Amino acid sequence: MAGKLGIVAGGGDLPARLIEVCRERRRDVFVVALEGHTDPETVKDVEHVWLRLGAALDALEPLRAAGVEELVMAGPVTRPSLAELRPNLRATRFLAKVGGFALGDDGLLRGVIHGLEEEGFRVVGVDDILDDLIAEAKTYGRLAPDTQARRDIERGIEVAKATGAQDIGQAAVVQQGLVLGVEAVEGTDALLSRCGEVRREGPGGVLVKVKKPGQERRADLPTIGTHTVAGAAAAGLRGIAVEAGGTLIIDAAKVAAAADEAGLFVVGITVEP
Amino acid sequence: MAGKLGIVAGGGDLPARLIEVCRERRRDVFVVALEGHTDPETVKDVEHVWLRLGAALDALEPLRAAGVEELVMAGPVTRPSLAELRPNLRATRFLAKVGGFALGDDGLLRGVIHGLEEEGFRVVGVDDILDDLIAEAKTYGRLAPDTQARRDIERGIEVAKATGAQDIGQAAVVQQGLVLGVEAVEGTDALLSRCGEVRREGPGGVLVKVKKPGQERRADLPTIGTHTVAGAAAAGLRGIAVEAGGTLIIDAAKVAAAADEAGLFVVGITVEP
Repeated sequence: MAGKLGIVAGGGDLPARLIEVCRERRRDVFVVALEGHTDPETVKDVEHVWLRLGAALDALEPLRAAGVEELVMAGPVTRPSLAELRPNLRATRFLAKVGGFALGDDGLLRGVIHGLEEEGFRVVGVDDILDDLIAEAKTYGRLAPDTQARRDIERGIEVAKATGAQDIGQAAVVQQGLVLGVEAVEGTDALLSRCGEVRREGPGGVLVKVKKPGQERRADLPTIGTHTVAGAAAAGLRGIAVEAGGTLIIDAAKVAAAADEAGLFVVGITVEP
Repeated sequence: MAGKLGIVAGGGDLPARLIEVCRERRRDVFVVALEGHTDPETVKDVEHVWLRLGAALDALEPLRAAGVEELVMAGPVTRPSLAELRPNLRATRFLAKVGGFALGDDGLLRGVIHGLEEEGFRVVGVDDILDDLIAEAKTYGRLAPDTQARRDIERGIEVAKATGAQDIGQAAVVQQGLVLGVEAVEGTDALLSRCGEVRREGPGGVLVKVKKPGQERRADLPTIGTHTVAGAAAAGLRGIAVEAGGTLIIDAAKVAAAADEAGLFVVGITVEP
C-alpha cells in the first residue's frame, strides 16, 4: 500500500482530479496549496497547508510531519516576478544555490525537484500516479482531422516546438496556415479567447499543445481537459492536437464526450524528436 | 523631380505620414486603398482607388493610367484566410504562379513585389522615400534602459528573432526575464493591451520589435509610432527597443517627445545577425 502522497498544487483542474483519484484508491494525501495558484475548493476536504510561493520551502516540515515520502507536482504555477515572489531567506538561499535567479522555467523546476530529492523526498510525475493521463497516439471521440486540419497541426507543432525551445510557452493556434496566436504566460484559456477574436472566415483552426524540448516530465507537462474543449469550441476551432507521450489529458472519457458534443476533434499526435 | 508615387496603403499611420511628406515635397501620389486595411481618412484628399485585397491586381491599370512608375507599400496588411480573400481570376492565377497558396507572409510579399516589377513598376522601400524613418542605434528622448531593462531587451530580441524565423510575428514583451507575450496576427496594439493584463509587480517590461531574418525590406518592416508609446505606457512597460536599421519609427521627434512625456525609453539597438 502506497504511503501518504504529498501534492504541490498549482492551478487548473489537475490537483482536484488527482485528489479525487487518491480518494477512490483510499490513498491519503497532504496538499501544499500555493496562494494565488491553487483553487481553494480543491483543498477544502483534505489535509493541507497554505503557503505563498516565496515561502514554499516552509512546506518541508509540515510534509515530513505528515509522514509524506512521495511528492508530486500537479498543475501549472505561473512564474511571478521577483518583486511578487518576495522570497524569504530560505527561498533566497535556495534560489541562489540552484542559480534560479537566472534560470528559465524549466531550469528552475529542475532545480526545485533536485532540491526536494536532496531533502529526502521521492519526486514522481503526476502520470506515474494517474496512469491513464498521458495522451496516446489516437483519436479521442468520433471526429478526426481532415487534410487541411492535418496541415494546420503540422504547422502548429513546428511553431509550438520553436516557442517551446525558447521557453516561451507550449501552445499555438493555427488556422489555414496562419498562426493566430502563440501562448506565453497568459495560458491556454486566454490564448483561445483572443484567437476567437482574430479568427478568419472559412474552416476553423486547431489548438496544438506540445511539450518543450528537454522538458522535465515531473513538472508542468502541457495539459488539456473538458474546459479546453469548451474554450476551443467558443473560439471557432475545429479541433485540438496534443503531443502523444508528452501531454496530459485530464479525464479522457469526458474530454472525448465533450469533443463529440461540440463537434470538435481531439487527437494525440506522435511528434518526431 | 520625382514622378507620381504609387502607394499601396496598408493599415496604421504610415500611409498618412507618407502622403503628408509627399505633399510637403510637392510630389504627386496615387493611392491603392485596400478595403478593411486602409484608414478611409488617409485617402480622402488624394487621388486613389479602393480595391479589396482579392482584386488588388486590378490596380495595375489605374496605376498606369495615373502615370505611376514608382511604387511603395506602406503599412501592414494582415493576411486573410483564403475564404476571406476571395481572389478573383487574375489574383488566383497570380497566386498559383508565385506559389502563394503555400507561402508564408514573407514569401508571398516577395512574390507580389517580383510580380509588380515584371509589370514594369519600380518597387522601392518606404525608407527610400522617408529617409529619416529607419531606426538608428541611439536613444530617442531623455530616458535610457537600465541594467534590468537591457537584460529584458536581450531576451526580447532572442524571442522575437525566434518567432520571426518561424514567420509568426516580429514583437515580444519581456518583463524581468519573463516573456509576457509574443505577437502573432493580432498586432502590436493587441499584444500590448493583453500584456498589461498579465504584467507582474515590480519594474515594468519592455516591448521589442525586430525584423524577421530574411525579411523583404520593401514590405512590412516592423513599425512604431506615438500610439505605440501610448500603448506601451498603458501596459505599464518601461520602454521600447527596436532593431536599428531594421524597423521604422514614424515621426521620430514626436515619438521621442511622447516617450519623455510618458516616462518611457525608446531605443534603437544593433542586433547581431
